[in-house]
Amino acid sequence: MAGKLNEKAKQLIGSKAFATLSTVDPDGGPQVSPLWIDMDGDDLLVNTARGRTKARNIERDPRVGICIVDPQNPYAGCVALRGTVVDITTDGADEHIDHLASKYLGVETYPNRQAGEVRLKVRIRVDRVAMQPE
Amino acid sequence: MAGKLNEKAKQLIGSKAFATLSTVDPDGGPQVSPLWIDMDGDDLLVNTARGRTKARNIERDPRVGICIVDPQNPYAGCVALRGTVVDITTDGADEHIDHLASKYLGVETYPNRQAGEVRLKVRIRVDRVAMQPE
Repeated sequence: MAGKLNEKAKQLIGSKAFATLSTVDPDGGPQVSPLWIDMDGDDLLVNTARGRTKARNIERDPRVGICIVDPQNPYAGCVALRGTVVDITTDGADEHIDHLASKYLGVETYPNRQAGEVRLKVRIRVDRVAMQPE
Repeated sequence: MAGKLNEKAKQLIGSKAFATLSTVDPDGGPQVSPLWIDMDGDDLLVNTARGRTKARNIERDPRVGICIVDPQNPYAGCVALRGTVVDITTDGADEHIDHLASKYLGVETYPNRQAGEVRLKVRIRVDRVAMQPE
């Protein structure tokens, strides 16, 4: 059964707070990195580029952890969840990184594109949500 | 060979920025949660309580990921690292959570103690450090 995002989780995901994505390294250990995030219905969407560590990891093992702390009020709780990557696609990935740049930076076009970079839009199904103190 | 914390990493770890700790769940997937952090020499110290998910996970598998984003300037880079838990102890754990409360809250005593809670001080050796854009 898919996990359900509560209102606080939706509010945080809709804010400019960064998410931390954790993926599984080839040796089974955890790899973490910060990134932008948004929602599509009950799914989470993130964006990366082909060949990056997190991209290679989720292609091999779709299990991810995500944590979002409100930088304005870190003691008011955070959202932490387990999810499963259900789609990795180049379709719409450039438009999606522009959309995230609009959300986080207020600009129309993602300003940090690298030459030759292939963007990937990643859809994550939420399996489990935990709102945590401390 | 242990990973080396650079100046930016030390500055972030010394600040009030929350860390995100990723551990390995029993099924091999990643579990993430935010927590306070500080340093002792080249090691990282965090504090949890017996029986929590992250405490059970690191007792079974010592591999962790840690990510710290500067909430004041999230685009200036972050520190992301892999580490190994080398010690979990109750010795000095109550004093250590008070020390973290002093660092993060400016108070002498950790204000959120639960009745019957057994605090654990966790020492993490840094294996690999990556400073990341985006």
